[in-house]
Amino acid sequence: MTKINQIQTYLKENNLDIAFITTPDNVFYFSQFKSNPHERLLGVMIFQEATSILVCPKMEVPDAINSGWSYDVIGHLDTDQPFELIKEKVQLNNISVSNIAIEKSHLTVERLESLQQVFPQANFVRLDEKINEMRVIKDDSEIEKMRYAAQLADYAIEVGCKEIAEGKTEMEILTVIENAIKEKGCKMSFDTMVLSGPKSASPHGKPGGRKIQKGDFILFDLGVEYEGYCSDITRTVAFGSVTDAQKEIYQLVRSANEKAIEAVKPGVRAMDIDKIARDIITDGGFGEDFTHRLGHGLGISVHEYPSVTGTNEMQLKSGMVFTIEPGIYNNIAGVRIEDDVVVTENGVEVLTKYPKELIIL
Amino acid sequence: MTKINQIQTYLKENNLDIAFITTPDNVFYFSQFKSNPHERLLGVMIFQEATSILVCPKMEVPDAINSGWSYDVIGHLDTDQPFELIKEKVQLNNISVSNIAIEKSHLTVERLESLQQVFPQANFVRLDEKINEMRVIKDDSEIEKMRYAAQLADYAIEVGCKEIAEGKTEMEILTVIENAIKEKGCKMSFDTMVLSGPKSASPHGKPGGRKIQKGDFILFDLGVEYEGYCSDITRTVAFGSVTDAQKEIYQLVRSANEKAIEAVKPGVRAMDIDKIARDIITDGGFGEDFTHRLGHGLGISVHEYPSVTGTNEMQLKSGMVFTIEPGIYNNIAGVRIEDDVVVTENGVEVLTKYPKELIIL
Repeated sequence: MTKINQIQTYLKENNLDIAFITTPDNVFYFSQFKSNPHERLLGVMIFQEATSILVCPKMEVPDAINSGWSYDVIGHLDTDQPFELIKEKVQLNNISVSNIAIEKSHLTVERLESLQQVFPQANFVRLDEKINEMRVIKDDSEIEKMRYAAQLADYAIEVGCKEIAEGKTEMEILTVIENAIKEKGCKMSFDTMVLSGPKSASPHGKPGGRKIQKGDFILFDLGVEYEGYCSDITRTVAFGSVTDAQKEIYQLVRSANEKAIEAVKPGVRAMDIDKIARDIITDGGFGEDFTHRLGHGLGISVHEYPSVTGTNEMQLKSGMVFTIEPGIYNNIAGVRIEDDVVVTENGVEVLTKYPKELIIL
Repeated sequence: MTKINQIQTYLKENNLDIAFITTPDNVFYFSQFKSNPHERLLGVMIFQEATSILVCPKMEVPDAINSGWSYDVIGHLDTDQPFELIKEKVQLNNISVSNIAIEKSHLTVERLESLQQVFPQANFVRLDEKINEMRVIKDDSEIEKMRYAAQLADYAIEVGCKEIAEGKTEMEILTVIENAIKEKGCKMSFDTMVLSGPKSASPHGKPGGRKIQKGDFILFDLGVEYEGYCSDITRTVAFGSVTDAQKEIYQLVRSANEKAIEAVKPGVRAMDIDKIARDIITDGGFGEDFTHRLGHGLGISVHEYPSVTGTNEMQLKSGMVFTIEPGIYNNIAGVRIEDDVVVTENGVEVLTKYPKELIIL
């Protein structure tokens, strides 16, 4: 059953007339057309029976067709009212509209109001959970792409480590990494982070002109996109020397990462995995300095469902892919170690393979 | 009056209790804190009298303070319910909540429902137009930043043109451009486009491994971010040779660009500028191949208010900054020429200065 057929079945089972999918990554999932529409309307409309419609800027229609979209298209000009075009098309297809499923975690209030205007009788329900449930289980072809995206991430870390030298700036190292990935014909899946010294303790810090010094930890957080699928890795390495206090923090984070990964298998809850990592760091005395969740789902989006937190009771299933990325951030050190893992039938496959012992360059 | 004070005055004048600002670029405008929160909640809450609050992931609180935010902060953990934290804080400040202004063009339906849950008595109104009205007029310090961002964009085109040679791929040329900008300590404001031959006729095409050949048009569309402000330039150059038919298309686009720019001054309507360019291209016989609006506002966002279309009756005012970017896309050629312009007291200042005569490399 194709992905669109699955939504059609869902519509029938739940007495829904239209699924209107507007999150660009979900549009890609259902149409194979990847596009950043900025403020313009991009969406896939799926009906119980009628042919699906891609709604996109008119100038992108050829790209959508080249990407493999073979159903109906509404291409809108900047002077068009796209919701009016949708209304006309739906009327033309003789579809009566009582219930519309939307992505409430993405659709804006303005667009909901536009839909309410053209379909004043309609009731709006969430489609988010259904799409999450589909996307969260990756099939073999998706995992194969992610395996290669992770290999490229390992390679990017290797390139970064080779560049580290006294006096080099974070940006210089970052440039060499990104060039190496471009040479492979790929692009980064998010803004690469190379953070050194005290900056490595800023979980979402920005790389800049700071020069590498002896005694620094250098944190790389980066990912590569391959055929629409993302990897996401973090490694922290030392330059010149490390203090015992820094070593202790590194080993705690590494142990939290490794023990959490060991526990991954079908049936275990997301919160259990978070707890294993968090307990190790808390028992080591740094619980307050681990300020974020253990990880996040990974796939077409670099952050996607599920969130691996201390409160998520969701049981892991074979085919799920997520990150495991404990960290400690304080004035002694900033360390994070992140891997991408797939839940398998019996346990776990770790996609990112760059070594995790403390490397002192 | 600071930007926050302006919103406070607006709240008082319109009997609103809270402005809740969640678009990341608007958060930057009001807080100087630039962050990509992914799925996490980021927002600025402004009240009539009470101290403003920044709502952000707890791990980003230090970055927010370093960016200059000196008011209240709610830092939330991944296991927190941020809307509950907001409710508690507002109750603590004894603020009664009847009317909340939100950005309907950005806030998701899910977040609106969360707000409705914690403030069940509240009525929700649009804040979008007020913020657009503020952001659309750039002050001298903003224009100064954009002037430099445009200089860097000119430089990037110059670097790209120097790299063009038979057999080089689009990605190789793109890499050299992006490295040159990184060396200047800046980053691109969006994914750089280098499109050659038939691909230059795809307005939102993706650069790849295609090798430059004699007879190609090569289209560069790129921008640079400087201190949070963006530039956006397009130039199309020829390699080896051009046919008369290609020359004709180039000159039409150039003329459309130049005549539209000449007409920019306070009091003229956005639609008038679009019409001048569109008429030139239509009279030349290529109206159907100019498939997008003339331009878009530019500033903190690479696409922002206002949209320069054939239907926008908005009168231009001094301090507005937008792009002028006519194009023709067909099987003879793909050509677009884009500049960034500022409306001045008496006319126009063009920020991007790279030459526009047809360059044959």
